[in-house]
Amino acid sequence: MNELALIERIAKLAGKPRSGIVCGIGDDCAIYRPKPGEDLLFTTDQMIEGVHFRPEAKPARIGERALARSLSDIAAMGGSPRFCLVMLALPQERTGKWATSFYRGLLTLATKTQTTLAGGDVAHNDRIHVDVMVCGAVPRGKALRRDGARAGDKIYVSGPLGRPWETKINPRLALGQSLLGRATACMDLSDGLSIDLHRMCVASKLAARLESVPLYKGATIERALHGGEDYELLFTLPKILTAPPGCFLIGEMREGVVGQINLAGAKIRSQGYRHFQ
Amino acid sequence: MNELALIERIAKLAGKPRSGIVCGIGDDCAIYRPKPGEDLLFTTDQMIEGVHFRPEAKPARIGERALARSLSDIAAMGGSPRFCLVMLALPQERTGKWATSFYRGLLTLATKTQTTLAGGDVAHNDRIHVDVMVCGAVPRGKALRRDGARAGDKIYVSGPLGRPWETKINPRLALGQSLLGRATACMDLSDGLSIDLHRMCVASKLAARLESVPLYKGATIERALHGGEDYELLFTLPKILTAPPGCFLIGEMREGVVGQINLAGAKIRSQGYRHFQ
Repeated sequence: MNELALIERIAKLAGKPRSGIVCGIGDDCAIYRPKPGEDLLFTTDQMIEGVHFRPEAKPARIGERALARSLSDIAAMGGSPRFCLVMLALPQERTGKWATSFYRGLLTLATKTQTTLAGGDVAHNDRIHVDVMVCGAVPRGKALRRDGARAGDKIYVSGPLGRPWETKINPRLALGQSLLGRATACMDLSDGLSIDLHRMCVASKLAARLESVPLYKGATIERALHGGEDYELLFTLPKILTAPPGCFLIGEMREGVVGQINLAGAKIRSQGYRHFQ
Repeated sequence: MNELALIERIAKLAGKPRSGIVCGIGDDCAIYRPKPGEDLLFTTDQMIEGVHFRPEAKPARIGERALARSLSDIAAMGGSPRFCLVMLALPQERTGKWATSFYRGLLTLATKTQTTLAGGDVAHNDRIHVDVMVCGAVPRGKALRRDGARAGDKIYVSGPLGRPWETKINPRLALGQSLLGRATACMDLSDGLSIDLHRMCVASKLAARLESVPLYKGATIERALHGGEDYELLFTLPKILTAPPGCFLIGEMREGVVGQINLAGAKIRSQGYRHFQ
């Protein structure tokens, strides 16, 4: 399968672009026409064979997961996805069935979340390398950020923590959108609660006290604190607001040593998945 | 150098975001606030060690080139660059000096072209893999596309063709912008004149007759027709318009077998650089 044939196949699988996309796959650039009053969100994530997944992992799962990780970042800011660009490097022998399954997996989630595949790039490489860029939109000035938490705000997560790699990522788009104008800070858990909450504390110049952490079936407390596979939302609400159903109260933001997190009276170490360590 | 330290260093090198970027490096997504009446252009390109450059290539040159290739796509549609996202996978031993030189090279061109580095991703990999996504803007509905050429339009290129890899890419941003509202079709030469003009003909449902091709110093006619390193603009103008200075008239769009290109009375083969062949 050569490059042109592969791109034609992708364009066919991608189908008709949704409103806003003036020009999709096939020209030098994709063209998006912003709607009045929207801010645009941009995020990107890499998935590399041998680093983020095993060579024998199912291509449809890799495609779905690559998109899901970026959608989770859009959810974390309260955004609605608009379109994605997919950059795929792959060996010649995977340009046939493998590539079709990869794009089918990705496009199933794209369709479900109303994300148009608007363009990208394919190249030859001896191992699979995927980058997915997603553009989302929020009402102007309303994006949920990490730096708005205040002392006394309650801390929540959107589900139990400590899940293994194998579970499906379910980007919390509806939840993120429902938190617009309500949450004082929000982010997704992609590196582990201990490091991600630490980052939120640093951005908001606060400390935090954890009271309890909901555990995913079979997870240890270590995995729930430091595992990087949850892709749940971590957010803070002013005391007077009630959390959406299905969310767990886990603690409170406080004045104190910036970035420090206490659990059951003890400081916890902020560690999680990091590259180059 | 660990991931957090590397990201902090990149953020420092990137400096202050330009207007339009509400939130740059450091949160889940970058936030861009569109200006009234603008369409946004999105393009992305991969550069892979061992495929697009040699391991010993200078990191500053790789960074500059990775951005330049995407800027050339923005130029091809008449756009003004707004911001870029940079996705870099690299080995541990290149996270120090190598990475700093890479970002310096990229950012020198970014500054010159007013392109904010607004975000991206870093990951571990045994070989360098770079993706650069650039967002540009054009007045609403004015983007230069491939599909608007008409029979009788004159065909131009922005410079002599057939340059070797080693030469610097100079994205033709000012030229592209000056063609807005004038050129009937435009694209950049990134795979070679024979295949790229063929694509323009197919998009515009026309054939083309080449009359002469300006040669880069020392280039053969084969390289000028089929080489993929030029990154000049290929565009069509109605007969009554004059070309901007420095551009070369190379032929004319015609009715005929769609996609067919004639040179000196003979059909030429549309070939150029393609992956998976």
